[in-house]
Amino acid sequence: MKRIFMDHASTTKVDAEVIDTMVPYFSTHFGNPSSLHFFGREALQGVENAREQVGTLLGAQDDEIIFTAGGTESDNLAIKGIAYLNKEKKKMDGPQIITSAIEHPGVLEVCKYLELQGYKVKFLPVDTYGMVNLEELDHVISKNTFLISIMFANNEIGTIEPIREIGKIAHEHDVCFHTDAVQAVGKVRIDTKKLQIDLLALSAHKIYGPKGIGALYIRRGVKLQPIIHGGGHEKGLRSSTLNVPGIVGLGKACELAGKRMEKDVTRLKELRDLLIKNVLHIEESYLNGHPEQRLVNNAHFRFTGIEGESLLLQLDERGIATSTGSACSSKKLQASHVLTAIGLNPVDAHGSLRLSLGRENTKDEIIYASKVIPDVVGKLRTMSPLWNR
Amino acid sequence: MKRIFMDHASTTKVDAEVIDTMVPYFSTHFGNPSSLHFFGREALQGVENAREQVGTLLGAQDDEIIFTAGGTESDNLAIKGIAYLNKEKKKMDGPQIITSAIEHPGVLEVCKYLELQGYKVKFLPVDTYGMVNLEELDHVISKNTFLISIMFANNEIGTIEPIREIGKIAHEHDVCFHTDAVQAVGKVRIDTKKLQIDLLALSAHKIYGPKGIGALYIRRGVKLQPIIHGGGHEKGLRSSTLNVPGIVGLGKACELAGKRMEKDVTRLKELRDLLIKNVLHIEESYLNGHPEQRLVNNAHFRFTGIEGESLLLQLDERGIATSTGSACSSKKLQASHVLTAIGLNPVDAHGSLRLSLGRENTKDEIIYASKVIPDVVGKLRTMSPLWNR
Repeated sequence: MKRIFMDHASTTKVDAEVIDTMVPYFSTHFGNPSSLHFFGREALQGVENAREQVGTLLGAQDDEIIFTAGGTESDNLAIKGIAYLNKEKKKMDGPQIITSAIEHPGVLEVCKYLELQGYKVKFLPVDTYGMVNLEELDHVISKNTFLISIMFANNEIGTIEPIREIGKIAHEHDVCFHTDAVQAVGKVRIDTKKLQIDLLALSAHKIYGPKGIGALYIRRGVKLQPIIHGGGHEKGLRSSTLNVPGIVGLGKACELAGKRMEKDVTRLKELRDLLIKNVLHIEESYLNGHPEQRLVNNAHFRFTGIEGESLLLQLDERGIATSTGSACSSKKLQASHVLTAIGLNPVDAHGSLRLSLGRENTKDEIIYASKVIPDVVGKLRTMSPLWNR
Repeated sequence: MKRIFMDHASTTKVDAEVIDTMVPYFSTHFGNPSSLHFFGREALQGVENAREQVGTLLGAQDDEIIFTAGGTESDNLAIKGIAYLNKEKKKMDGPQIITSAIEHPGVLEVCKYLELQGYKVKFLPVDTYGMVNLEELDHVISKNTFLISIMFANNEIGTIEPIREIGKIAHEHDVCFHTDAVQAVGKVRIDTKKLQIDLLALSAHKIYGPKGIGALYIRRGVKLQPIIHGGGHEKGLRSSTLNVPGIVGLGKACELAGKRMEKDVTRLKELRDLLIKNVLHIEESYLNGHPEQRLVNNAHFRFTGIEGESLLLQLDERGIATSTGSACSSKKLQASHVLTAIGLNPVDAHGSLRLSLGRENTKDEIIYASKVIPDVVGKLRTMSPLWNR
């Protein structure tokens, strides 16, 4: 059976050019970049070249990029790293973090953990499209606020947050601004300077790079405490032998993302809009997330009377790989915190399906999916106690 | 120029079989193992197979293995993970960690950080061979001791610690025992059960696997707090999309290490002993570390009147890659904490050189190095103000 991958928000196939760039760093340039000898210098050159490639994609300098093991670690380092410094400073006042209710667990769970450590966290609600309210953000900032952490684009419903405005508000109040940009990188042109971003997390495996590697952009002057202690790599912020092949792969993936972005965006938007148009022909089907301010590759639906997981499994049997929410929580039974935050009741939330497109998807695949989805929805509805027509 | 790599304690070339095992997980089986669809299940199968391979090498069950981004993260997770739980329990008494003065920074810096957080840390001294004293260990354990963290084998001088006896003492006192086995895995047969080890850190890139991936063995029943929060991967102990190609590579590297160990050990020991014999013909040259209880691939020398870094650079110019200490601290100017702990003065410590052999080294290479090292030492001594013969 031909397999069609429509779950690019969960991960992506590594680009052939990226693999070709990485492989020599396993076998030939295998040195430890901390070593002083030839093999070490060779590896270090690969690392520093990649640092420049990542920086270039973000409008950042090389020395503003730190390599980590992925988006989650980057989020942890950004938020805990700032928090642990500010605990000392603002011990008496209750140091405050402002975030949104729809963050990725890499941010949300860190904030909940910090709450247990005595930090105050404000989880901003979002509207029915998943947008944070800027007036409310402005309103809740206090003299104790030391960090605003709002995602660039949501991983489930694809809504793109008003990052420029958030950056402006943060800096008017002299508050540090972190954004989890794992889903946005490669799909939205990001200039960290113009957007006044202080910290930005990204992951290679969402942009056709390898798993197990990510980066944190740290604006010059922003100070963090490390969360992994040891040999003092990455300016003391992230100890561990550098993952050279991964880093080189991330660098290449960033370079390709930069080069191909306009073409990718145009193509993906066209495919996604065709998919949305076709699927919404289904009776009582709805698009979750913002109609315009959404990721170019994200189509997130809900279908009355359908259980999302059954739909996913039926589509999988027909060769189409999709998701009900984020891959991170696919094995949990509770309704998505994102879908409940935009006002869906648990039943509707469980009736949702995410299709996220990528470079290798074709128009034929969209047409195939556009036929299969209505069939499967119809079939499931005939068996559903929630569908009485 | 032919390049000879004699720095396998810093990193290793990835085995061709390991690369072959990994590559399909970049391009074909690229799914996110948390996904419910075909691509996800395929990736998950690779991960669980690797978990078994790692477990087998350590005499452990699959469910006792957690994947991390490397040895340093594994050490951080083990030590902080236990410490954060015990802070609550023993808040009033001053919870104590016992470690050695010669640990890798991944342990040492974590312990120093925890000291700042109110934990008590006893850094056990070692003898001139780098061995911890078991009587002293037994003596310093108190009712507040919740963790003993002693490395399996030292990364600089290669001394193998009396792990079986340490495990016995730890369990007699009902204290948890962690060991950083990054350098020992693949060179020493390790049975975590017989050795009474509760936590064990390992890294793939020291055993012909890829960088950026490691594991932590956690004996059933041992509880930890995570240091990276998020989607709850790895039983909630290490959130982040799993690095599938890295994990699969680590698994294969462990399988190969298990299969080849006897052959590797015999061969490496022979090459190393030849190297040591030849190098020690040099006037005023000494072997650092234990003469017998040392890693089969480690030869660590000091030469009176020589500056180790000059020696390293001269050897590099002649195609031989070596190290003065650990790669992690190669760019720092202070004398190695390991060498000062075994009683060397800073001048002697700076006159040291580590050669660490590996699978691809040949007898011809040993013979070449045995000629070049005396030449270079001689040449450097003629220019040395510390050498007045």
